[in-house]
Amino acid sequence: MMNYSILTRRTIRQYNCRDVEPELLNQLLTSAARTQTMGNLQLYSVIITRSAEQKEALAPAHFNQPMVKQATVVLTICADFRRTTTWALCRKADPGYDNFLSFMNAATDALLFTQTFCNLAEETGLGICYLGTTIYQPQAIIDALHLPQLVFPVATLTVGWPAEEPPLSDRLPSESFIHEETYHDPTPEDIDRFYSDKEALEVNQEFVRINHKETLAQIFTDIRYTRKDNEALSTTLLDALHLQGFL
Amino acid sequence: MMNYSILTRRTIRQYNCRDVEPELLNQLLTSAARTQTMGNLQLYSVIITRSAEQKEALAPAHFNQPMVKQATVVLTICADFRRTTTWALCRKADPGYDNFLSFMNAATDALLFTQTFCNLAEETGLGICYLGTTIYQPQAIIDALHLPQLVFPVATLTVGWPAEEPPLSDRLPSESFIHEETYHDPTPEDIDRFYSDKEALEVNQEFVRINHKETLAQIFTDIRYTRKDNEALSTTLLDALHLQGFL
Repeated sequence: MMNYSILTRRTIRQYNCRDVEPELLNQLLTSAARTQTMGNLQLYSVIITRSAEQKEALAPAHFNQPMVKQATVVLTICADFRRTTTWALCRKADPGYDNFLSFMNAATDALLFTQTFCNLAEETGLGICYLGTTIYQPQAIIDALHLPQLVFPVATLTVGWPAEEPPLSDRLPSESFIHEETYHDPTPEDIDRFYSDKEALEVNQEFVRINHKETLAQIFTDIRYTRKDNEALSTTLLDALHLQGFL
Repeated sequence: MMNYSILTRRTIRQYNCRDVEPELLNQLLTSAARTQTMGNLQLYSVIITRSAEQKEALAPAHFNQPMVKQATVVLTICADFRRTTTWALCRKADPGYDNFLSFMNAATDALLFTQTFCNLAEETGLGICYLGTTIYQPQAIIDALHLPQLVFPVATLTVGWPAEEPPLSDRLPSESFIHEETYHDPTPEDIDRFYSDKEALEVNQEFVRINHKETLAQIFTDIRYTRKDNEALSTTLLDALHLQGFL
C-alpha cells in the first residue's frame, strides 16, 4: 500500500558534481515549511552554505567530516526565537522567549521542519547526510554563521545528488520501540530478542573484532559515545545555550 | 514537479468513528523508523494510547484539549535512552547517557521520527494534531504512562480519520527563514514585509479585536505564550528532566 522512498532511504555521504539548483532547494524548503509549528510561528531558520570559504569555516565544528567540504550544499537549521522577538519589539509587544522552554519549542519546530525537508528532498532523488555533530560544538557554528542571540543551531544536513548507493542499514524490531498503553521496561530476555539481529551482522562483528572489544554495546559506550565525552559536551552545550540567551 | 500531501496538509482535530487499524498504525510506525538516528541507535519509543481510561489520564497534561479524549489513537513519542542503557548493562558495557547532551540526542531522534510518521500518516489520509503541550507538564505524562528513568515525552499526536477540512493556514514568506551564507538579522522594514500578510488576515484581525489588543504580536506575548508562563514552565521542564535522570 505504501511505496515511499523512506523505505529505501540511505544516508548519502558522496555526491556527484550536479548542482542542487537554487530554485529546487527553495521549493523544497518552502514546501517543508508547511510542517506544523508552535502557534504557527515557524520558530526556525535555515542557513544555506554554498561557498567554499564557509564550508571550510564549518568543517572543524563537524570534526572535519569530509562531507561538509564535499557536499554541494550544507544546510544548518536553527531554533530561532530572534525573528519572532524582533517582530514583537516592532509591534509594542513584550517578548519573553529567553528561556529554556522557548529553546525547546523552537528546537522542536526546527527539527520537525528539518525532517519534512529530508523526506521531500529524498523523494526528489537528492542524497542527505544528517550531522549529529551540530550540538557538539555549537559555538563554532554560531561564530561561523554569525548567529545572533536566540538563534541556535540544532541540525546540519549535507545535500547533493548521490554518487553512491550504500546498503540499507538495519533497524530494531518494532516491538522494541512500540509500547501499548504504558511503558514496558525491557527485560534481559527482551534485550536479547531486540538486539540479536544487529549483533549478528557481519559488519558489526567486524567492528567489535578490530576494536578489540567484547560486545557491540562496548563500541558505543567505550568509543563512539562515551560518558566522558557526553558529560563534557553537555557542559559545552549548556554554556552555548546560556550565551545565546536561552538559559 | 512535487505533488505531496504536505502542500495541502491541515491540522485535524475532529475525527470520524473509523478505526485506525493496528496493522496500519504498526506499518506506519515501522516505516517511520527508517528515519536516520544517532549511531543508528533509535533513541525513541512510542506509547500507543487507545483505552478511554488512559486518554482520560493523559487529558489534564494537555490542558484537557478535547482531541485527546476524542481521537481514535493518541501517540506519545519519547526520547529514550533507557533501552540502549539496559542493552549496555546486559552486555558488560558502561553506559553514560544520564546527561543533557544525551537527552538532546534522544529528543532529536524522537522528533525526526515523529515528523516522518506525520508525513507518512498524512499521505495515507489520516489526520493529525501535534500537541505542543507535551513538554509543558511532562511529569503528568510520565506518571500516566509509567515512563522510567531516561525516558522523556517530547511529542504527542492525536490521530484519526478526518471529520473536518479546515482552511490552509498561512505561512511566512520563505525569505523570512532562509539565509544565504550567514544570518541576516531582520530590520524593522524586513519585519513589516515578513509579517504584513499574516497581520492582514481577517481571522487574525478578529483575534486582536476580541482580545482588546493593539497588535497581533501582543496576542502571542500577552495571552498565548507569556513570559510568566514560559519561565514557570522552563523550571517545570528542567525539574522533570532532572527527575528522569537527564540533568
